[in-house]
Amino acid sequence: MNKVRVIEIQKRVYANNDENAAILRKELEENKTYVMNLMSSPGSGKTTMLVNTINRIKDKVKIGIVEADVDSDVDAHTIADKTGVQVNQLHSGGMCHLDSGMAREGLEDIKYGDMDFVVIENIGNLICPASYDLGQALNAMILSVPEGDDKPLKYPKMFSKVDVLVVSKIDALSVFSFDFVALEQRVRKLNPNVKIFPISAVTGEGMEAWCNYLLTEIKRFQKN
Amino acid sequence: MNKVRVIEIQKRVYANNDENAAILRKELEENKTYVMNLMSSPGSGKTTMLVNTINRIKDKVKIGIVEADVDSDVDAHTIADKTGVQVNQLHSGGMCHLDSGMAREGLEDIKYGDMDFVVIENIGNLICPASYDLGQALNAMILSVPEGDDKPLKYPKMFSKVDVLVVSKIDALSVFSFDFVALEQRVRKLNPNVKIFPISAVTGEGMEAWCNYLLTEIKRFQKN
Repeated sequence: MNKVRVIEIQKRVYANNDENAAILRKELEENKTYVMNLMSSPGSGKTTMLVNTINRIKDKVKIGIVEADVDSDVDAHTIADKTGVQVNQLHSGGMCHLDSGMAREGLEDIKYGDMDFVVIENIGNLICPASYDLGQALNAMILSVPEGDDKPLKYPKMFSKVDVLVVSKIDALSVFSFDFVALEQRVRKLNPNVKIFPISAVTGEGMEAWCNYLLTEIKRFQKN
Repeated sequence: MNKVRVIEIQKRVYANNDENAAILRKELEENKTYVMNLMSSPGSGKTTMLVNTINRIKDKVKIGIVEADVDSDVDAHTIADKTGVQVNQLHSGGMCHLDSGMAREGLEDIKYGDMDFVVIENIGNLICPASYDLGQALNAMILSVPEGDDKPLKYPKMFSKVDVLVVSKIDALSVFSFDFVALEQRVRKLNPNVKIFPISAVTGEGMEAWCNYLLTEIKRFQKN
């Protein structure tokens, strides 16, 4: 009984959310601000990957970060300290995902009109964020090697909704039994066109390809 | 606006949920069935840890597993194949947590009255499951070393609600910068009485202490 009630409510929230996300997306397009919605499990290395990405491209594009957490602001301080870019912290007040209203709050607060590229770091969770459009240009997800190659089987909605999958912590491949080919097959079955970037923010492997992709997409978006 | 609406609804669900959980807890006590609610991030090693735990204690207590997933049943098959115990799969239909109604469904289906010990493996998520009482005797959480020692700062509710924290994948300590002392301090600040068990299901380190603790708790519960 509880189940049905909650599902009905989610539908209402979604309907509102999609409308608001579409309006926000149009405004972002008019302002030429490319927004990436970055999703992952807790502890996948989102913050380390972001710091390394920002430092490689911040001379070429003006970047802002909207950092979402249930309650803390540790990651926001880490990113600001290590990159020097503006980071705004959103507290979700216990919510397990962002919606387009929260995304708008974060984007307006950071004055997105002045930015070429804003990353919204979503709440660490592979389930709820997959259901909420934030008006982003790019849906990206990080899966870290220690989490295992079976995750597309368990969280199919998330894997089917992302434009880009970054596979992080590949420097730890020797310690974990992680079958890259099996992962890719499982992901492509759900999402044939997804781009996959294996990276290690520690050794730098794969970071250039990932950053070049981002810069190309930002430029293409701004030309339209 | 969306935020407020969802929070109100959660409160209604919680109220119902807590009442139902209390009734279920009483039934479990009368039947002398010790239930552990096992929570963690995706990819923390829950299934591997469970397989190793079950195989070490299954000769002493009759065990059943209720496995929850959004959609798949890979873990259920792994556990059943590697331990021989009864595993029932619950599909949450997209929900990011179990509630006491779903727990009851799983427990009744597995005929909990015949069991000494039932593990409910919750949905992989550090946020939502922390808010729902399932009628369990023990709330346990797994944090894996690759996720990082900062997680109590980011998911305080989960860490403050568990009776037991299992720190898994300690065989990977050499690859990751993970400060065990800092972790313990952060956890104890939220939850002074939590029991902490560092383990590696791969090397077996720490598994005996963890299994002895479980057996002692099950026996104590059944004597009351």
